[in-house]
Amino acid sequence: MEVRVPVTEIVDRFLAGDRRALARIISRVENETPEGRDYLRDIFPHSGKAHIIGVTGGAGAGKSTLTGALASEYRNRGKTVGIVAVDPSSPFTQGAILGDRIRMQSLALDPGVFVRSMASRGALGGLAPSIADVVAVMDSFGFDYVIIETVGAGQDEVEIAGTALTTLLVNNPGTGDDIQAMKAGIIEIADVLIVNKADHPGADILVSQLQALLALAPAGSRRPPILKTIAMKPEGLEKVADAIDDHRRWLDESGELEKHRMSNARHQVVAAARAILLQRIQRNTSAEELDELVRQVAGRTLDPHTAAEALADSVRG
Amino acid sequence: MEVRVPVTEIVDRFLAGDRRALARIISRVENETPEGRDYLRDIFPHSGKAHIIGVTGGAGAGKSTLTGALASEYRNRGKTVGIVAVDPSSPFTQGAILGDRIRMQSLALDPGVFVRSMASRGALGGLAPSIADVVAVMDSFGFDYVIIETVGAGQDEVEIAGTALTTLLVNNPGTGDDIQAMKAGIIEIADVLIVNKADHPGADILVSQLQALLALAPAGSRRPPILKTIAMKPEGLEKVADAIDDHRRWLDESGELEKHRMSNARHQVVAAARAILLQRIQRNTSAEELDELVRQVAGRTLDPHTAAEALADSVRG
Repeated sequence: MEVRVPVTEIVDRFLAGDRRALARIISRVENETPEGRDYLRDIFPHSGKAHIIGVTGGAGAGKSTLTGALASEYRNRGKTVGIVAVDPSSPFTQGAILGDRIRMQSLALDPGVFVRSMASRGALGGLAPSIADVVAVMDSFGFDYVIIETVGAGQDEVEIAGTALTTLLVNNPGTGDDIQAMKAGIIEIADVLIVNKADHPGADILVSQLQALLALAPAGSRRPPILKTIAMKPEGLEKVADAIDDHRRWLDESGELEKHRMSNARHQVVAAARAILLQRIQRNTSAEELDELVRQVAGRTLDPHTAAEALADSVRG
Repeated sequence: MEVRVPVTEIVDRFLAGDRRALARIISRVENETPEGRDYLRDIFPHSGKAHIIGVTGGAGAGKSTLTGALASEYRNRGKTVGIVAVDPSSPFTQGAILGDRIRMQSLALDPGVFVRSMASRGALGGLAPSIADVVAVMDSFGFDYVIIETVGAGQDEVEIAGTALTTLLVNNPGTGDDIQAMKAGIIEIADVLIVNKADHPGADILVSQLQALLALAPAGSRRPPILKTIAMKPEGLEKVADAIDDHRRWLDESGELEKHRMSNARHQVVAAARAILLQRIQRNTSAEELDELVRQVAGRTLDPHTAAEALADSVRG
C-alpha cells in the first residue's frame, strides 16, 4: 500500500534531488493520471535546461549500446544523464546481453544516471503519447542531458525530431536497406550521422554512400557530420559528444533553438488538446451510443464522417 | 476551368461506371473538401463488396512489382482491381523501371484496373488520413479487389491492417533486418507471408526462419502460409491469389470478417471525429491566441496540458 503524500511535498523532494520522488512523478505522468498532471504543472517551469538527444536507427544498428556508451562518456565529463528507452527490444527494457550487461548495470548503479523504459504506443513501436512529458520531468529534475532511444520506424523519427534538440541516426555497415530508407527522407531529420560497428567490413563504403547522399542536400543547409564508432568497445564516443555540443552551439547561435522550442511547444499543445477532446468524447458518449454508430457504419447505412460529426457534437454538451 | 456539375449527377455517372467521375470523386475525397464529403455520404452505401488487400514490407522488398503482378493475375481471372499506392518511392508514383515499366503501362491502359497514388502523411511515409475513404470510393465503384501498397514502416502496418482484410507481408532474402523487425511484432498482422525474389540466394533460409518464427505463435491461432514468388517474372502469383481467397473464406466462416468490419468502422469514426475536433479548434481559436499559448509553453510559464485545456474549451463555444 502506498502512503498518500501531498503533491507539494513530492514536488519539494523532487526539486531537492530525491530520486524516489523522480520515479514517482514519472510513473504518474506516464500513466496520465490527474496527480501526474498536477506534478507536471508544478515542475514544468524548471524544465528547458537539459540538452535533449534522440537516438534512432534501424533494428540491430546498435542504438542501445551507443546510448549506454554515450552516457558513460558524459559521466566521464562530469555530466548527469537521463535515459528514456522507448524501443521495446532495448536492453534497457529487456535485460542487456554480453558485454553490454556490465555497462548497463554500472549505469544503473550510478546516481548521476537515471534510466526509464517506456511502453511504446502500439505493438510495433511508435512514441508513447506521454514521452515528451516524461522528458520534461527528467529535464526539470536537472539532468544535463536527456537521451531518448527509440526503434527506427518511419513516423517515430519525425516525432523524436520534435522532442529532441539533436537527433543521432545510427547506421551499421552491410544493410542496403538503411540507404534506401534514408533516401525516403529519414536523413533529413538527422543532425549527426553515426556509422556504428565501424570495424565491420563495408564501414567505409557506407561512409561514402552517406557522403554522396549528403551532397544532394540543398546548398546552404547544415551538413550533419558523419562519425565512425564502435560502441561495444567503446570507441569514437568523444567525437560524438563533441559533435552534439557543436550542434547545440549552432542551434543557439543560428536562432534554430528558439524556432525548435516554439514548434515543439505547438506540437505538444495540439497533441494534448486532441487527447483531451477524445477523453471528452468518451465521457459524453456512452459505449452503447458509440457501438450503435459503429454498427451503422459497418453496415454501410451511415458514412464515417456523418457518424463522426455526431460524436464530435457530443463534446459541446 | 472546371464546369460545376451537381453532386447527384457525378454520383449517377460514378455508379454507372464512369472512370472520370471516379477520378473526380477520389480527388475531392482525398483533399477532404465538403464536396468530397457529400460524395462519400452518397456512395458509401455501395461499399463493402470489394476484398481489400494490404501489401507491406521493407524498402526494396519488391512490393510494387508484386502488386502489379498480383493485379495482372486477377485480370487473368476476369476480376477488376483498384490500386492505392501510398509508398512515395512506388513505381506507380514515380515511374517504373526496367521490366516493370511494361507491366505498369499495360495495367494503366486496362479499363479493368484503376491506379491511384496518394501523398503520404509525413515526409517519412505513414498512411494519408483519407486513405480509408479513398479505398471506400474504389470499393463503391465496384472493383472486385482493392490493393493498398505502402512503405513498410512501423505504425503504417498497423493502420493498413485496420483497412485491409488480408495483409501480405513481402520479405526478400539477404536482409537480416526483416527478421528483426518481425520479432518486434510486424508478423502478427500478416495474413500471408511472401518470400519474394525467391531465385536469390538465401530464399530457403528465410523460409525456414519464418517457419521457426511462426512456430512460436500461440496454439490455435491461424498460421499464415509462406509463399515463394519471383514477382519480376512473374512466378508464384497464382498461389498468392489462391491464398488470399482462402483467407477471405476463413474470414467469412470464422466470423472474423464481421469483427474486422466493426473494429475498422470504430477506428474510422474515432479518427474522423478527432479530425473534426481539430478543425473546430482551428475555427474557434485565432492564430494569435494559439501563438500566445505556444509562446507561454515554450517560455515554460505554462505547461502544455493547461494550455491544451484552454484550446479544448474553445470547442464548446
